[in-house]
Amino acid sequence: MNKLEMTDLIVSTRLEKGLSWETIGKDTGMSPVWLTSACLGMNSAPPEKAAAIAEYLGLGEEVAKALEAFPTKIWDQAVPTDPLIYRLYEVVGVYGETLKEVIQEKFGDGIMSAIDFSMEVDKIEDPKGDRVLLTLNGKFLPYKSW
Amino acid sequence: MNKLEMTDLIVSTRLEKGLSWETIGKDTGMSPVWLTSACLGMNSAPPEKAAAIAEYLGLGEEVAKALEAFPTKIWDQAVPTDPLIYRLYEVVGVYGETLKEVIQEKFGDGIMSAIDFSMEVDKIEDPKGDRVLLTLNGKFLPYKSW
Amino acid sequence: MNKLEMTDLIVSTRLEKGLSWETIGKDTGMSPVWLTSACLGMNSAPPEKAAAIAEYLGLGEEVAKALEAFPTKIWDQAVPTDPLIYRLYEVVGVYGETLKEVIQEKFGDGIMSAIDFSMEVDKIEDPKGDRVLLTLNGKFLPYKSW
Amino acid sequence: MNKLEMTDLIVSTRLEKGLSWETIGKDTGMSPVWLTSACLGMNSAPPEKAAAIAEYLGLGEEVAKALEAFPTKIWDQAVPTDPLIYRLYEVVGVYGETLKEVIQEKFGDGIMSAIDFSMEVDKIEDPKGDRVLLTLNGKFLPYKSW
Amino acid sequence: MNKLEMTDLIVSTRLEKGLSWETIGKDTGMSPVWLTSACLGMNSAPPEKAAAIAEYLGLGEEVAKALEAFPTKIWDQAVPTDPLIYRLYEVVGVYGETLKEVIQEKFGDGIMSAIDFSMEVDKIEDPKGDRVLLTLNGKFLPYKSW
Amino acid sequence: MNKLEMTDLIVSTRLEKGLSWETIGKDTGMSPVWLTSACLGMNSAPPEKAAAIAEYLGLGEEVAKALEAFPTKIWDQAVPTDPLIYRLYEVVGVYGETLKEVIQEKFGDGIMSAIDFSMEVDKIEDPKGDRVLLTLNGKFLPYKSW
Amino acid sequence: MNKLEMTDLIVSTRLEKGLSWETIGKDTGMSPVWLTSACLGMNSAPPEKAAAIAEYLGLGEEVAKALEAFPTKIWDQAVPTDPLIYRLYEVVGVYGETLKEVIQEKFGDGIMSAIDFSMEVDKIEDPKGDRVLLTLNGKFLPYKSW
Amino acid sequence: MNKLEMTDLIVSTRLEKGLSWETIGKDTGMSPVWLTSACLGMNSAPPEKAAAIAEYLGLGEEVAKALEAFPTKIWDQAVPTDPLIYRLYEVVGVYGETLKEVIQEKFGDGIMSAIDFSMEVDKIEDPKGDRVLLTLNGKFLPYKSW
Amino acid sequence: MNKLEMTDLIVSTRLEKGLSWETIGKDTGMSPVWLTSACLGMNSAPPEKAAAIAEYLGLGEEVAKALEAFPTKIWDQAVPTDPLIYRLYEVVGVYGETLKEVIQEKFGDGIMSAIDFSMEVDKIEDPKGDRVLLTLNGKFLPYKSW
Amino acid sequence: MNKLEMTDLIVSTRLEKGLSWETIGKDTGMSPVWLTSACLGMNSAPPEKAAAIAEYLGLGEEVAKALEAFPTKIWDQAVPTDPLIYRLYEVVGVYGETLKEVIQEKFGDGIMSAIDFSMEVDKIEDPKGDRVLLTLNGKFLPYKSW
Repeated sequence: MNKLEMTDLIVSTRLEKGLSWETIGKDTGMSPVWLTSACLGMNSAPPEKAAAIAEYLGLGEEVAKALEAFPTKIWDQAVPTDPLIYRLYEVVGVYGETLKEVIQEKFGDGIMSAIDFSMEVDKIEDPKGDRVLLTLNGKFLPYKSW
Repeated sequence: MNKLEMTDLIVSTRLEKGLSWETIGKDTGMSPVWLTSACLGMNSAPPEKAAAIAEYLGLGEEVAKALEAFPTKIWDQAVPTDPLIYRLYEVVGVYGETLKEVIQEKFGDGIMSAIDFSMEVDKIEDPKGDRVLLTLNGKFLPYKSW
Repeated sequence: MNKLEMTDLIVSTRLEKGLSWETIGKDTGMSPVWLTSACLGMNSAPPEKAAAIAEYLGLGEEVAKALEAFPTKIWDQAVPTDPLIYRLYEVVGVYGETLKEVIQEKFGDGIMSAIDFSMEVDKIEDPKGDRVLLTLNGKFLPYKSW
Repeated sequence: MNKLEMTDLIVSTRLEKGLSWETIGKDTGMSPVWLTSACLGMNSAPPEKAAAIAEYLGLGEEVAKALEAFPTKIWDQAVPTDPLIYRLYEVVGVYGETLKEVIQEKFGDGIMSAIDFSMEVDKIEDPKGDRVLLTLNGKFLPYKSW
Repeated sequence: MNKLEMTDLIVSTRLEKGLSWETIGKDTGMSPVWLTSACLGMNSAPPEKAAAIAEYLGLGEEVAKALEAFPTKIWDQAVPTDPLIYRLYEVVGVYGETLKEVIQEKFGDGIMSAIDFSMEVDKIEDPKGDRVLLTLNGKFLPYKSW
Repeated sequence: MNKLEMTDLIVSTRLEKGLSWETIGKDTGMSPVWLTSACLGMNSAPPEKAAAIAEYLGLGEEVAKALEAFPTKIWDQAVPTDPLIYRLYEVVGVYGETLKEVIQEKFGDGIMSAIDFSMEVDKIEDPKGDRVLLTLNGKFLPYKSW
Repeated sequence: MNKLEMTDLIVSTRLEKGLSWETIGKDTGMSPVWLTSACLGMNSAPPEKAAAIAEYLGLGEEVAKALEAFPTKIWDQAVPTDPLIYRLYEVVGVYGETLKEVIQEKFGDGIMSAIDFSMEVDKIEDPKGDRVLLTLNGKFLPYKSW
Repeated sequence: MNKLEMTDLIVSTRLEKGLSWETIGKDTGMSPVWLTSACLGMNSAPPEKAAAIAEYLGLGEEVAKALEAFPTKIWDQAVPTDPLIYRLYEVVGVYGETLKEVIQEKFGDGIMSAIDFSMEVDKIEDPKGDRVLLTLNGKFLPYKSW
Repeated sequence: MNKLEMTDLIVSTRLEKGLSWETIGKDTGMSPVWLTSACLGMNSAPPEKAAAIAEYLGLGEEVAKALEAFPTKIWDQAVPTDPLIYRLYEVVGVYGETLKEVIQEKFGDGIMSAIDFSMEVDKIEDPKGDRVLLTLNGKFLPYKSW
Repeated sequence: MNKLEMTDLIVSTRLEKGLSWETIGKDTGMSPVWLTSACLGMNSAPPEKAAAIAEYLGLGEEVAKALEAFPTKIWDQAVPTDPLIYRLYEVVGVYGETLKEVIQEKFGDGIMSAIDFSMEVDKIEDPKGDRVLLTLNGKFLPYKSW
């Protein structure tokens, strides 16, 4: 079973059972964002987590093995078109240099890792319109000289 | 004075005075991220903020006027090459579909605004390596039918 | 049933029944433009509208569910080639900066939302050649400072 | 005097005199959108309009001549990055096929001209947030067989 | 029957019957260039022409309906690679600005329509090598001010 | 004197003298299209023609030499944006395969040369709107086997 | 039988019979380079050559007909990635302007035809490493004025 | 003196002295193709050749040093537009796979070097039109396993 | 059996047998990197190595033949998206000019061959985090003059 | 002094003094590769190294400050054209997936850092042709789940 078949099976099972990503995450003790990325095939799951997800959804070992497999991360659109994803791309375009200035002023020359990294989504209720709170947490990696 | 000249003047003044973006932000009561984006020419400043920044740096009214001007937001690299900025682009590529799933599950069909939007950078000290905390806060905008 | 299958089924049913988008829109009390975009899979329909469309066309609940699903909005051609669509792209290219000047002069620094947005198509009969009237109506979103 | 020099001169004169595009348009009896596009160099002005604009701004015949010149319409960004302009591009991407369906159903096989074309911007005041109304009016051109 | 199936059927029927595009055009009283573009799916045929083509080739009403359908005109190669087509692209590249100068000098600011448009191919026999004569005939559309 | 300087000088001289490309072409016995392409720097002129053009405009030998120089033909926009030039590009996109069918049916496998090639622009007056007539005349070059 | 099926059949037959392109070329009296290009579907074969190739390989008339068909020459990679082909692309990039200088100095303003063209591959044995000799032979086509 | 200044100086000196690349090549005992590529800045010259070229043209040691410098080989157009250079690109596109087949059949798996490489241009006089003969000679480099 | 089928079969056999690339490499006396590239279809194997790999995995002669076939090396993403591969691309972008300076200073004008080339991967254990050691070994090829 | 001016000054000083990158590196106790990348402006130097380089070359504090500045790493060519750099790009294209397989088999799911990274160039003398040895050493960064 490859990652695509795995995702199709997990998504259809999830819908049949009426489970949200959030519920699955909470019940298995995993972050909903990370869990979703693993189920969509963009991250590999450690064996015990892969087994827990498969078991929770009532799916077999093949699904667990597919969750464990190391993915090749590919996206087709250099500039994404879906408006939700494009807005994130726009934030990188508009604020990229600003973030470089502010992060490097605070930490020195280096980057925020996208590997030793986690992310959460929260909802802030607001009578003028609810707000999305995205929190990105990445290890700072300093450049080294040699 | 156009935005490019404004940015050059602000940046050189900042360096001569030995002021960090963070210090300027704190002393003027503005977010360092927003302040930096305004000084780099990627956001316009409301008149009172434009005046406060110019005054704080000892620069004239021309700078305040240039800060107030509405910028045309242009970036040249559809895929950024600087590693710090690329990692943010990579996050959008790897987690874009995941964020769409999780946000739309929580909020319904719609997007996180990049206009009614703010962002902060924090440093989490950690003996295993400090961490960068990016917080993005955008209003949820639901699609409408008509 | 995914969005592609849904569109194929709706379009073939529509043609068999000899119904125009305009007729379906009028009979169901929805805007023909919005209704078409939902049936082509580029917008999700609220449950009651999804049910009304499916019922009107004599199609089952699966179609209603597919209409409700939140679409990922993807287009393949960064520069469209079909002449009708290209002319709209050309309008954006030729008048983009002009619209930025005129809108921001009228409203301040900000944008016209493409999410809180509606659009209509009208026909103006004219002996020298009928005219297409496109009306775009989007909420103005001001940039915020923070 | 080429179009770039003309635009620079008109824009700086306009700002010095504190005139909005709207005011200039109203006072000269021209549409603010068309007037702006001519002053930004994306449309040529008929001689009497060119003369009227130059005279109104107190600028010489050279400016009138430059307004009359036929422009080469060039834009550098196949996909625009400025958020205000990008949203218009997004509308073309999301609704392009929908508009093709609806327009051709109403008019037959053909296109909306971008040459025999006009456009207006209006402001609709709304306590929940003002709205931008864009009206595009183009002649329908039917395909011909031969 | 979609346009692709229609084209496949027409082309194979044409070859079986040993008919050239020219012969079909002459016998049905249509321009061979226009007829070919309709049969390749890049133009729609008015009902009576669609019926005449289908009847001439001994094909059924489905083919006539497919010929009538309004096509979405898509080409995949922004720069065509086939040498015959590339040479036409090269002519546009080499002579594009020249044609703009000469046409606009003769007609004023405007364009040659590609919609109200026809084209013919002729052969000029020449002992030094036959020559291809392409004739493009398009309505001039003047820009309008408003 | 390079081609760019040559074009600037010829164009400004032409405007000062109030001469159209057509007039220059007729008076010197050259095709206005070819003459314009040589003056815009996209074709080289044979020595006697180069001398005749320079003399007619009252320009020196340097201009004649620059007209004789063999140009490197470069265009920056793979897809042109100016509407007049884009419509020609669109014709190649829409009718490219059609022309391949019709030309190769008439002449065999081969191409229309863009080198042994000439082109004319004519105006057909028409009460319903004047028409542009473009005539392209290129030698047919058959593919060879070996 | 289309060109793709033809190529698959010829290539598998060739391998089963253990025939090299060189042997087929020599035995049929055709250049191996041209023969290969015809069998790969990038050139059409004159009827007698098409028949000879089909007969030599023991394949039927359908293959001969497919060899005769006029191909649409398409390549997907604007910049080829296979190292053997990339090196040829690199030669065009590094030496393109040089060849323009040297050829036009020798022949005047014009080009080397890629249509009235032939090419051969030879092997030069050399103890320090064998060498590939590519010979390109194309008719010179002078630009014409008109 | 950088390569650009060197090329400008060599080219203008060459034209003043009325020397062809061929003459310079013959008189200095170097291949005209290689000599031209060195003078255009796309190859470095060994010290003795650099000195010989500079001396022959009556230019100083700075030119010799600039000829010796190792160039960074850059070309801007992934797909060249000048017709002479494009035809070479087209040959790579049309015959790339053919050459791969024929070369690898003759030599085994590997490539023709573009570094240990030479090239010549010859003129074949022909009453039906002179022909350009390009000869490319590159060392065959076999892939290695390890 | 083509390369894709070969790779699928080898990979599934490898996983069923629980063999790592490293183990296969060691047991057959081949470099794991080279062996992997041959099994993924990006290099051809000499006959004896092809036979050894097929035999070791218990696969038939068809697999050996497919391993021997000369591949066409194609990659789809000019800029790779998978983070592991992108980091290598980034190294080329950041250090490309540096490597050119340092290699050409040490060796003269020329390049490191990617054909007469080998590469190894090693693991350096380190309590602060293990390190990847990539060793690239390519023959230096000097440019030649002629 | 910005990075470009710094690089120009360092490179011209280096050439005047006849110093190789290798010599400077050895004398200052820094890796020649890293030192070159800092001097070319693609890495920042820690203060003591920046001071040491400036002092060694007899340049002032401005150069030291410019060496310390944090660079924005930009490269213009997504696919590099210079043959030395292209060969490295080709290695990434041909061996990218292979390296992913081999590294992740050895280390688990993760990447080789391009930030906590060093690289060396060595020369291996060989009578059959010297060889370039590139050694890349990067920290392995495992993906984390959360």
